Amino acid sequence: MDIQSYFPIWNQLTSAQQHLILDSLMERSVQKGTLIHNGSGDCTGLLLVQSGQLRAYILSEEGREITVYRLFDRDLCLFSASCMLRSVQFDLAIEAEKDTTLWVIPAEIYRRVMEESAPAANYTNEVMAARFSEVMWLIEQIMWKSLDRRVAAFLLEEGEIEGASVLKITHETIANHLGTHREVITRMLRYFQNEGMVKLSRGAVELRDKKRLEELRGT
Amino acid sequence: MDIQSYFPIWNQLTSAQQHLILDSLMERSVQKGTLIHNGSGDCTGLLLVQSGQLRAYILSEEGREITVYRLFDRDLCLFSASCMLRSVQFDLAIEAEKDTTLWVIPAEIYRRVMEESAPAANYTNEVMAARFSEVMWLIEQIMWKSLDRRVAAFLLEEGEIEGASVLKITHETIANHLGTHREVITRMLRYFQNEGMVKLSRGAVELRDKKRLEELRGT
Repeated sequence: MDIQSYFPIWNQLTSAQQHLILDSLMERSVQKGTLIHNGSGDCTGLLLVQSGQLRAYILSEEGREITVYRLFDRDLCLFSASCMLRSVQFDLAIEAEKDTTLWVIPAEIYRRVMEESAPAANYTNEVMAARFSEVMWLIEQIMWKSLDRRVAAFLLEEGEIEGASVLKITHETIANHLGTHREVITRMLRYFQNEGMVKLSRGAVELRDKKRLEELRGT
Repeated sequence: MDIQSYFPIWNQLTSAQQHLILDSLMERSVQKGTLIHNGSGDCTGLLLVQSGQLRAYILSEEGREITVYRLFDRDLCLFSASCMLRSVQFDLAIEAEKDTTLWVIPAEIYRRVMEESAPAANYTNEVMAARFSEVMWLIEQIMWKSLDRRVAAFLLEEGEIEGASVLKITHETIANHLGTHREVITRMLRYFQNEGMVKLSRGAVELRDKKRLEELRGT
């Protein structure tokens, strides 16, 4: 396995820390629909997605769900090991959206490495900050749902102007058109891609489901 | 100042790291209403609240606001130094809700300490996890708004049963009544307190604004 794609700081760990992780690593294959982790009572461990797709969501008392974020190949799931963080006070469930193969690092092992290693702790910080950003984005979507409509409208308009369904356009350019940041557009387009509305490639956005984009845009 | 109340891991820092922080610390007094930090472009630094009250909120493109969390005496504000975390991709604004005195640690100094010190990085992780929990709680409130009503209803009912506005009751007991966790109730009651509906003291909850509790409970 190429563990550096999950931990860019791998070479900053000591040999002992690397062995601790490698020796405890478990491979697991789960079928689509499997509930892998169920709330903070579960101490599943860190999940490293080899292939497949996971969904992290919260559940209301009435059984309603909302997806908080998704995880794809080479993503790392931190909150399935939330038992190692005292301050985590929410219950996240994680299920396989597709047949998925993953590695699991036991939470206790990861906590031990993180306690001694500043690079590991700082990397964990970055992973948490990235998830935090996804959650803040979700709040904005829930509260205001406006930019997604604007992006959908912009893409459809560009498609009409160019008379094409493959738009040669950078995220930066779209951001400049709409008065926002490139990162925000990148995030939005990835969401569109997850939903099957567009397909992204270097320097291009392909419109795959114009009907849904039109529905999103509204009138 | 008692810096250990902000950094329980203070004694695990080296003398050089402690001096780096102490020598860079700036005291700042701001009046109620002051905008202290405005989005990720601002690299204000870590804020340590001496006295007063801060509000962290996000702003929609149309100018609508939503409070994400509040900070009180001895709280530490991390996201005002979000420039030190590459993965933070959201804009939080922080304003003084009351006249506030605070210390500021420049982001660059804190980042340097965090890079070398596993205890500092792990503590930062815990602070971020605590804020993450507040944000997840907010999503649940926004999406489902049910437990707050249940807590309000429970407190009003207890007040009627006891014929008193000061309830001698622990958070644990309330949690057991409502089938939830103590931490969730503590969080909810602190929110009620921030809103002026109750006043908390050891082993007691005083109902301060029954009218608003009744409104919250609904019919």
